[in-house]
Parts: sequence; structure tokens; C-alpha cells
Amino acid sequence: MPNTPNDLATATTATSGSKAITEQKILTGDRATGQLHLGHYIGSLKQRVELQHNNQQTILVADMQGLTDNGNNPSKVADNILNVVADYLAVGIDPAKTTICLQSGIPALAELTMYYSNLVSIARLERNPTVKSEIQGKNFGRSIPAGFLSYPISQAADITAFQAQLVPVGDDQLPMLEQTNEIVRKINSLANSQILRECQPLLSNISRLPSPDGKSKMSKSLGNVITLDASDKAISQAVKAMYTDPNHLTIDQPGQVEGNVVFTYLDAFHPDAEYVAQLKEHYQRGGLGDGKTKQILTDCLQTLIAPIRARRQALIADKGYLIEVLKKGTEQAREESQQTLDKVKTAFGLNLI
Amino acid sequence: MPNTPNDLATATTATSGSKAITEQKILTGDRATGQLHLGHYIGSLKQRVELQHNNQQTILVADMQGLTDNGNNPSKVADNILNVVADYLAVGIDPAKTTICLQSGIPALAELTMYYSNLVSIARLERNPTVKSEIQGKNFGRSIPAGFLSYPISQAADITAFQAQLVPVGDDQLPMLEQTNEIVRKINSLANSQILRECQPLLSNISRLPSPDGKSKMSKSLGNVITLDASDKAISQAVKAMYTDPNHLTIDQPGQVEGNVVFTYLDAFHPDAEYVAQLKEHYQRGGLGDGKTKQILTDCLQTLIAPIRARRQALIADKGYLIEVLKKGTEQAREESQQTLDKVKTAFGLNLI
Repeated sequence: MPNTPNDLATATTATSGSKAITEQKILTGDRATGQLHLGHYIGSLKQRVELQHNNQQTILVADMQGLTDNGNNPSKVADNILNVVADYLAVGIDPAKTTICLQSGIPALAELTMYYSNLVSIARLERNPTVKSEIQGKNFGRSIPAGFLSYPISQAADITAFQAQLVPVGDDQLPMLEQTNEIVRKINSLANSQILRECQPLLSNISRLPSPDGKSKMSKSLGNVITLDASDKAISQAVKAMYTDPNHLTIDQPGQVEGNVVFTYLDAFHPDAEYVAQLKEHYQRGGLGDGKTKQILTDCLQTLIAPIRARRQALIADKGYLIEVLKKGTEQAREESQQTLDKVKTAFGLNLI
Repeated sequence: MPNTPNDLATATTATSGSKAITEQKILTGDRATGQLHLGHYIGSLKQRVELQHNNQQTILVADMQGLTDNGNNPSKVADNILNVVADYLAVGIDPAKTTICLQSGIPALAELTMYYSNLVSIARLERNPTVKSEIQGKNFGRSIPAGFLSYPISQAADITAFQAQLVPVGDDQLPMLEQTNEIVRKINSLANSQILRECQPLLSNISRLPSPDGKSKMSKSLGNVITLDASDKAISQAVKAMYTDPNHLTIDQPGQVEGNVVFTYLDAFHPDAEYVAQLKEHYQRGGLGDGKTKQILTDCLQTLIAPIRARRQALIADKGYLIEVLKKGTEQAREESQQTLDKVKTAFGLNLI
């Protein structure tokens, strides 16, 4: 497996030999609105595979959150639940080490959302910078679904239900954790006791992977992704079409590395950082063509994806097994989240029956 | 028991001898934010006692809805749940005939709310005239809690969870049922099948009971109520303080009946409508003093409340029994609502596990 510039597992949990000294509760997840892709792999999936060894990790297949902007097209969510589970298992997330669960199968998440909704104002939701920019991006205006505006409350329910201490996020998601911790403090104040835990972000050092054309991030909704079951041919085509340095017209000219998507991907995915550094130097002084760098990247990505694709194909052919994994994880998550719900209901005085 | 001007039970269900021909599903309920009072009695409780004989009636103790504007003061809700149950039983609502259940004890209601929230826009919620005037009344502005703005969605969950056909409401609540039926149509369209029922209002002919001072409606939050366990003395004092006709200065003068709260109450509560008509005539032509009319009303209300108060005092002394009633009804409601949730989840394609 290739290295990544940052090893978040060791950065966040002190390990001594093979035994963890501190084990932390981690919550993460994905909206189930499409197959996962290389951007997810490098941004989070790879990290989760590492984190699962020394932590209690819960991964939520967020079908309910996926519905918040797909209410009129729910099959986009329903059809992708098992795709996402297959992606998890294919990259090496181990259901014996990580709880993989389905949001819609956990009633306590909806119930906690209802309680928390009484403690968060509409104005506060509208101030959330992440939601604000998403509303603009989706051209929602005031026709924004109520469920979408309030999804930060639902996320707070997800995080607190599992008493997560660490939540892996990008910079852009920090306002979500602020919102969560505001709710935690309000509930703890009502309960007059620390029944919920504040969470900390586990920030990724890797910035979002650009799309092959370099114009935007790799995104399911923009349709410019390299999926985790991409064929060798699809990978090769995607790399061939990649944006490099438009002023690098002949091989012997010096080329620019910044903004050159091929090098961004080599930085992210190539296992040998020193070799990539040498390539950059060569490219910058001239004499290294885009055909050559693209071939190196193609080989690297094909090598990375081939075994994932093979596992994924076997998994997706066995839907019964995927459902079984999801069912088992969801049952466990249901029990765990119910304990938190009971505490929150008691804080509100609603533990009568 | 006194008559009411309208007998809604016979107006809505055709009865033949002692056997009902049509039995309808009815949902009704109360926010658990205080004891119920004479306004509730005449506006809905009395009707529910009649309706329970020939219909399937579910009454929801709406603690979650009570929290939507009491998030920071939840004991106002928690402390009143059993008060409301005691009020129900004291007036004659029979748990063997009516399902009395607690909203917070029914997870499917929260889950349905989450699904429906994806189909209703913030703009649509803000246009709801009932919510609009409540927001103004409470001076919420943009600091309105998210749960309060979206409580019509939660009400739609309540109504549809039990597949209610009839919902007893006042005129001012009609926009709530419109909102519910909009959601029903959207879900049925997603499901491509009539999985949810549209509901009809069961409009009360009785306008809201004014407060004794005639200045506003009788309201828990305004503190101007005659509760269902009011003592003879409290009743007598409340009637003594009632607004009559300020120009009716001596007994022999003609008096005005319109806006005279004593006559409004006599119309609502006195069992003999003909006698009240005679009193009105006498009052209008002069010779009937306010002392006399007030005494008649006092006697009438004391007679009405005495047995209710006695039953209520016995009930509230046996909290274990009240909890048992609520528990049993809630379990039944949980099963029933789960069936609806399963159908709605299937409509969204989320019946995988």
C-alpha cells in the first residue's frame, strides 16, 4: 500500500508496540449518494483502515443525510447503500474492527435530532458557513428543504449518539463540529452533568483531490471521478486527459509542477515520495515529458486499484453478505445510541415510561 | 352531562341503534404544558368522550411538541404529562376505548418527521399562517427554534402515523391539515400507491371560550383558566370577576347579552338551553341582575366540575396507575406507527435491513 504524507493513526493515538495506549471513539461516514472514489480513498478511507486498529471506530452510511437534498429522487440514495458498504470492505475496513451501520436503521438518531432541534435557532442554522455555501451551490434559496437546513443538527445527533471524541473532517466541516459542541454544552447544562462528550476534529493534512481537469474537486455530483472499481482502461483515459502545464509545449522545456494535476496525484498516491521529488526536479529543469509522468501515474493508480477492484467485484456479487455486515453493525449501533438517547431523555425529564 | 350545541359524534359517524356503521380513525392530543381547563373541556374533551364509543380514537400527549418552545425549560413539559393523563381519565376518556399515548415514547414519529422534512421547504413552513402568528405572538423573530418552525411537519408525522381520517381542530388549525395532506400526496406519489391517508378536519362549532375577563381566550400561558380540579370557591371567584355588560348599571335596566361572558359560559355549559334562552330574554328586557346570572353559572360550573375534580384527585394520587395507562397506550401506538413507518421507508427504498 502506498504511504501518505501524514500518518494520522500515529498522530492521534499513542501506540506502544502493538498495543494501543489510548483508544478513542471515532465517528465518520459518507452520504450514500454514489460509489466512493479516489478522492474518498486518499481523503478518508485509507485513514480509516489505519485508525480501526487502535480505536473504536463507527462508520455511518448516511442514507438519511443523503435524502436531505434528494427527497424527490430517493433511489439515488437507496441504490448506493450497498455500493458504499462494498467500497468500505474492498479498501480494507474490517467489520470485525469497525462498526459499519446504516443511519436510517437507528431510530435514536432521529429522536436525538428532535430533542436538539429545540435548542438551535433557525438563525444559527442559517449562519453555518458550510450550509450557507452549500445552499448557494445548490441554488436552493428559500426553497431549501427543512431537512437540509437542519442537517447540522442531525450530524450532531450522529456524533453524540456514539459519544465520539474524534471526528475526521476537512477544514470546511469545522463549523459542523462547533455546532455539535454547542449542543453538547446545552444538553450537559440541562442535565447538570457531563452526559455528552465534546468532540475534536481529526483534521486531514491532505487537501481535497482535484478533478482530473484541475478545475474543481473530484466529486460524485460533478461526474468527474475515478471510482474504486475503475478499469485499467478508465484509469489510463482519466490520466491521459489530466491537466498538466499548458505552457510546457515540448519535452525539453522546463515545466511547472504547481497546479499540475499529474504531480498532485503522484504526491497523493505514489508510494515513493523521494522518487516523486526527483521527477518534479527533472520536470522543472526540462527533459521530462507529460507522456512519461502520466505513464508513471497510470501504473501507480492501476497498481493501487487492481486489488481493490477485484475485492469489490466479489463483494458486490454477494449482496447477502453486505446486508449481513450492515445489519450486524446497525444492531450494535442501535444499542449504543439508545444508551445516549436514554440519558438525553432523562436530561429533559422525559424518562417517565 | 350538559348538552353542547353540536353533537359532533352523530354528525360524523352514522349510528344505527347502538352499533356504529362507520368507524373512523381519529387523532387528537394536547401539548403537555399545563393542566387542562374548561376551555379544553368544552372545546374538545367532551367531544372525545362521545367520539370514543363509535371510533378508533388515539390521543397523543404531545410532550415533544411541548418542548419546541420550552427547550430551555423542559420541566414545564415533564411535570405536566401525568396532569394531562389525569384530566383525560377524569372527564371520562376510557383507556379501554381510546389509545392514550406519549409522543416521546414513539420513535416512529421522530423518524417520520425526518423523512417528511426532506419534502417541505423552509419557505413553505414560513408561509404557514398558524405558525406565522404564533411566531409573532411569541416574539421569536429569527431566533425561533428549528423544532418550532418545523412542528407542522412533526404534526403531519403524528396524524399520518396513525392513518387518521379525522382530526378535531379549530379553524385556526386548518393550515396544519393542509400541510399534512400535501405531505401525504408527495409520499403517495413517491410510493406510487396510496400508502398514507389524507385527513379531514372535524371542525368544532364552538368558538374558543373567552377568559373570565373577556379580553382574551382562556389560556394556560395567560394564567386565566378555570382548571378541571378548581375548587367551588375558585369557581365562584372566577365567575364573580366575569365581564358582563358595563352599561348594565341597575337590575331593572335592559342588559346586553353579546360579549357578556356570563352568557357565553351559560351557552357553553348549562344543560338546559331553553332556560338559558329565557334568561337572556329577561336580561335583555331588564329586571335580571348580574348577581343572579352569576349565581346560576356558578351553580352550573360547580355541578359540572365536582365529580371531575373528585375523580381527578383520586387519579393523581395513584401515579402508578396513570403511568401504566400511558405505557400500555404507548406500546400499542408504537406498533401501529411502526407499520406506517415501514411503508414510508419502503417508499423511499430504505427497506434494505
